[in-house]
Amino acid sequence: MSFELELKRIRDEIVQNLPPEITVTKIEFEGPEIAVYSESEDVAAIETSSTLKDLAKVMRKRVVFRWNVDKRKDPAETKDYIMNLISKDAEIGEITFDHTRGEVIIESGKPGLVIGKKGINLKEIRTNTFWQPKTIRTPPLPSRTIQLIRGMLKKERQTQKDILLEIGKRIHRPALFNNLNIRMNALGGFREVGRSCILMQTRDSNVLLDVGLNVGNPNDRFPYFFVPQFSIRDLDAVIISHSHLDHCGVVPFLYKYGYRGPIYCTLPTRNLSTMLQLDFIQICDKEGTPSPYSKRDVKNAVLHTIPLSWGKVTDIAPDIKLTLHNSGHILGSSMIHLHFGKGDYNFVYTGDFKYQKTRLLEKATVKFPRVEGLLIEATYGGPQDRIPSRQESEKELKQILNSTLKRGGKVLIPVLAVGRAQELLIVLEEYISSGFIDKVPVYIDGLISEATAIHTANPDFLSSDLREKILHQGKNPFLSDFFETVSSQDERADIIGGGPCIILATSGMLIGGPSVHYLKALAEDSKNTLIFVSYQVSGTLGSRIIRGFREFNYIDWKGRTQLVKIGLKVFTLEGFSGHSSRSQISQFLRRIQPRPKVVIVNHGEESKCVSLSTMIHKKLRKSTKSPKNLEVVLLK
Amino acid sequence: MSFELELKRIRDEIVQNLPPEITVTKIEFEGPEIAVYSESEDVAAIETSSTLKDLAKVMRKRVVFRWNVDKRKDPAETKDYIMNLISKDAEIGEITFDHTRGEVIIESGKPGLVIGKKGINLKEIRTNTFWQPKTIRTPPLPSRTIQLIRGMLKKERQTQKDILLEIGKRIHRPALFNNLNIRMNALGGFREVGRSCILMQTRDSNVLLDVGLNVGNPNDRFPYFFVPQFSIRDLDAVIISHSHLDHCGVVPFLYKYGYRGPIYCTLPTRNLSTMLQLDFIQICDKEGTPSPYSKRDVKNAVLHTIPLSWGKVTDIAPDIKLTLHNSGHILGSSMIHLHFGKGDYNFVYTGDFKYQKTRLLEKATVKFPRVEGLLIEATYGGPQDRIPSRQESEKELKQILNSTLKRGGKVLIPVLAVGRAQELLIVLEEYISSGFIDKVPVYIDGLISEATAIHTANPDFLSSDLREKILHQGKNPFLSDFFETVSSQDERADIIGGGPCIILATSGMLIGGPSVHYLKALAEDSKNTLIFVSYQVSGTLGSRIIRGFREFNYIDWKGRTQLVKIGLKVFTLEGFSGHSSRSQISQFLRRIQPRPKVVIVNHGEESKCVSLSTMIHKKLRKSTKSPKNLEVVLLK
Repeated sequence: MSFELELKRIRDEIVQNLPPEITVTKIEFEGPEIAVYSESEDVAAIETSSTLKDLAKVMRKRVVFRWNVDKRKDPAETKDYIMNLISKDAEIGEITFDHTRGEVIIESGKPGLVIGKKGINLKEIRTNTFWQPKTIRTPPLPSRTIQLIRGMLKKERQTQKDILLEIGKRIHRPALFNNLNIRMNALGGFREVGRSCILMQTRDSNVLLDVGLNVGNPNDRFPYFFVPQFSIRDLDAVIISHSHLDHCGVVPFLYKYGYRGPIYCTLPTRNLSTMLQLDFIQICDKEGTPSPYSKRDVKNAVLHTIPLSWGKVTDIAPDIKLTLHNSGHILGSSMIHLHFGKGDYNFVYTGDFKYQKTRLLEKATVKFPRVEGLLIEATYGGPQDRIPSRQESEKELKQILNSTLKRGGKVLIPVLAVGRAQELLIVLEEYISSGFIDKVPVYIDGLISEATAIHTANPDFLSSDLREKILHQGKNPFLSDFFETVSSQDERADIIGGGPCIILATSGMLIGGPSVHYLKALAEDSKNTLIFVSYQVSGTLGSRIIRGFREFNYIDWKGRTQLVKIGLKVFTLEGFSGHSSRSQISQFLRRIQPRPKVVIVNHGEESKCVSLSTMIHKKLRKSTKSPKNLEVVLLK
Repeated sequence: MSFELELKRIRDEIVQNLPPEITVTKIEFEGPEIAVYSESEDVAAIETSSTLKDLAKVMRKRVVFRWNVDKRKDPAETKDYIMNLISKDAEIGEITFDHTRGEVIIESGKPGLVIGKKGINLKEIRTNTFWQPKTIRTPPLPSRTIQLIRGMLKKERQTQKDILLEIGKRIHRPALFNNLNIRMNALGGFREVGRSCILMQTRDSNVLLDVGLNVGNPNDRFPYFFVPQFSIRDLDAVIISHSHLDHCGVVPFLYKYGYRGPIYCTLPTRNLSTMLQLDFIQICDKEGTPSPYSKRDVKNAVLHTIPLSWGKVTDIAPDIKLTLHNSGHILGSSMIHLHFGKGDYNFVYTGDFKYQKTRLLEKATVKFPRVEGLLIEATYGGPQDRIPSRQESEKELKQILNSTLKRGGKVLIPVLAVGRAQELLIVLEEYISSGFIDKVPVYIDGLISEATAIHTANPDFLSSDLREKILHQGKNPFLSDFFETVSSQDERADIIGGGPCIILATSGMLIGGPSVHYLKALAEDSKNTLIFVSYQVSGTLGSRIIRGFREFNYIDWKGRTQLVKIGLKVFTLEGFSGHSSRSQISQFLRRIQPRPKVVIVNHGEESKCVSLSTMIHKKLRKSTKSPKNLEVVLLK
């Protein structure tokens, strides 16, 4: 088999580029990485020298070093060594061993202290134990999801290693064609919001960007998988831009139907996606509709996920390299950069992106090594979509909160569990601690707490200010005791019967969950207030209320339908949106480097896609397209 | 199998709609037609009554009646009966019997006389022999191709019947989907001239429009068959607009690789395509390049062809009906009208079309029952493509011929064997017989004579004037004795060494064949003249000379290369073109009824497609697209 020839070629190249004292005993393709096994003690020194970097540059591949099994120190002794080496302040939790990859995984409250200045501790561990140390963070708020994932990966290390070896073989097969004929197949999320799915196809390879669920239309939930050019069997990779269900909600379904290839995304995207997918199964169960996949499929998806950090170039197919970049939308959300062939073509898919710094995140990246084709979202791409500034919206929020609380009302803010919820928590923590608003309880209901816990486990992906506050000033706004997590019907009844308060509850578009329950209870009293802070997909109750409807049918837990009249005040504060406004999109397009030759528009209602596309063509003088679902665009 | 349910349903419907005295013994799906077998003598009467028409209207299917085998008269007796019935003037040739379909096929010089006034003779034959009579014409000029095809079909009647039954089953399977998702896949001939190929795809069906060869680039000859959405196995039908190789040249290749479905086209298109495909194999052999298919594959294509006349609505898939209409480009050339679903969508592909009456043909049709989407050719769609009027070009031709002949020169006109050649023959016949030019020999070399013979076999497809002349005034310009057919090297040497003359020779783009041989011999003498009368595809010698090159390499039969300088006069007379000029395209678009919602442009150099598309958008205010090869457009 031809990947073996490639393995031999790479082995020879590595041996040539290493100092002669280092013996190479084995080389494996471990997914996209090359794992080099050795018995030489000097390898530990290499890791911190420039040799490894030089090697990666020469090879244009990611290389990791491992020691042979017999070289590695006894695990118990290694554990003792590490506990002695690292200061108590690091709050070391569990230390576990991955024998299949020769890694020791150190969980701690403060991974920075485990690593040490310039990685001095890791070097010590390597040199003295011949294990590769890997650090993970104990979330300051406990997360069931992270616990579940870490537990599962611990149990399934051999399975995961086998999966990586299989994936490695496939990635490193030889490319057969010179003329790539790169095609972008619109399978979902074009001229609509929902079920985002793009099939990138060359003569050699097939890659899916996002595999989302149609949130607004449960009768037509899936991307257009039926097209004959899509075949699960031929799929090389799935890349997920971020964890919202309209981008990742159908991923486990692929495993149900036989996909066994990799998923690439950031670590927080993996964690948040898993949380939301498991929640989706529960919602289906509750509603009595069959879920399109089971927990086993979600588990399979996790086992096949290869987490990537931003900026790392990774081989994902014989003719495609992938790099993820910050997109500023939610925790871990990424723009997807694909490099095709040998410099033939570069393509960027923005996913959902925010070209503005928020409290939670840095603004989206605009610098890329090369870009010829750009696929950009148009959620707020319409000419009416002038989102008020962040400052204005914060000011308005303050006023709305104050006047509602002053008149003894309650404020309900429906939020997506991931993204707006955390942004608002930071804002509310500041308002209350600075005395801008009264000190009332902030209730958090639905998946929000769990999502927030996952945020606390991944501070590396937060904005630099927030990271600085959390990691170095020890001020974590998410841990504030203004916040109270709600989880039972009794607690909800108390809140509804109680005094003025602020309630953040899912679902964010009022399609089910506690937010609808609260709305029903609070709707008729005009003292109360409902605030929308995020995009409402067409077809949802949220979108109906925004368009002026002032009553809705509520189905209680006994299945009885009640007509509820809406008397409370309704506000929409678009300034908190995680999407770029039309002018932010335009700014992004003026600043992106280098300039793409063609801009393709997706992820927006039909009229917005067409209007944004026209604007880009006329004002920015770029070639544009706004394809329909099922259409195919030739890139090169 | 479910086509059997459909068969039963149709049988019941037919029996219900027939007079009770007619017994139905068997019903078969014979390709797209329903063949009804009976033993009732009264069927003969039904054929000429309105019952059959009413039935076809009710059924929305084409119905033919047949008698049971035991009912039919003895063939020898039937033959005698026919010979006695029909007048000698009909010039009856062979009379043969198709026992598989109960048809008697009567070849004659004057089929009109066989048919009789209002079909009286056919009715007599039916009533007295219980055979279905079918007439075919003996070409006044003998055609090897027609002889070959008719001989083969005679031998293979059982095979052809079996093929039709298989096709019938496939056409009459039930449609599975309501939502068709009609997609137009550009597989060749988009933003280029050559290898025209369009895959029309619904959720149920797959149909190819044209399967052409890239004439200008022998290194990249085929349409983009590699795309995963194309699968020979899933193909329901191939429809051929006309017989030029850039539209039909790859059809036999499909049979080589396992296609066993039908080809739909007009009868002259079948005959001319077969001629050109067999010639292409010969050219490949001569050039020592392997032909992509063999004679066996061409034969297979003929056996699977279902000839259609213009205006007949035909079921070709569970959700697609086909109708062909005159496109005015060459003999038998058609626009392809597809009706999808139950009135969901109507699509017209113009193919190559001429929106102007010529001597040979009527102008292209503009009236359709419905059209939502239109695919139109852009060969002369550029802003510079102001084709001079036909009158001007004829005047110029007269002047050029006269001045060349007067100075003792020879005129070489490279022509495609099919189309321009016949148009010019008619013009030259008129010029000489009216004394507009000197009476010099007109030499015809290459496939032209054979193509002309096929024209004489199909007068029904010619312009009404010409048909009138040939059929009723007995004046067939193609039979003029001004014309001399050339077939040997000796004859060519005589012509080259001889006096003033006019030479029509293939290939029309000087990519090989006798035209290049003549050019080499006549090139240096400035007394001679070279006239281009048709479109020169980029990459051909013809196109190089038009762009100003005045020398070329000639490879003689010994394989030696010679540099030939061009001293003769070169003229281009675009008024004879079989394509619509930009203004004719524009007129066509203003007059087409009803108005399509979207106009898609193909079959033109990149700049012409884009420019025509822009013009249609700006001046005619229509939604337009000019897709690239490999792109897919969603129609509905």
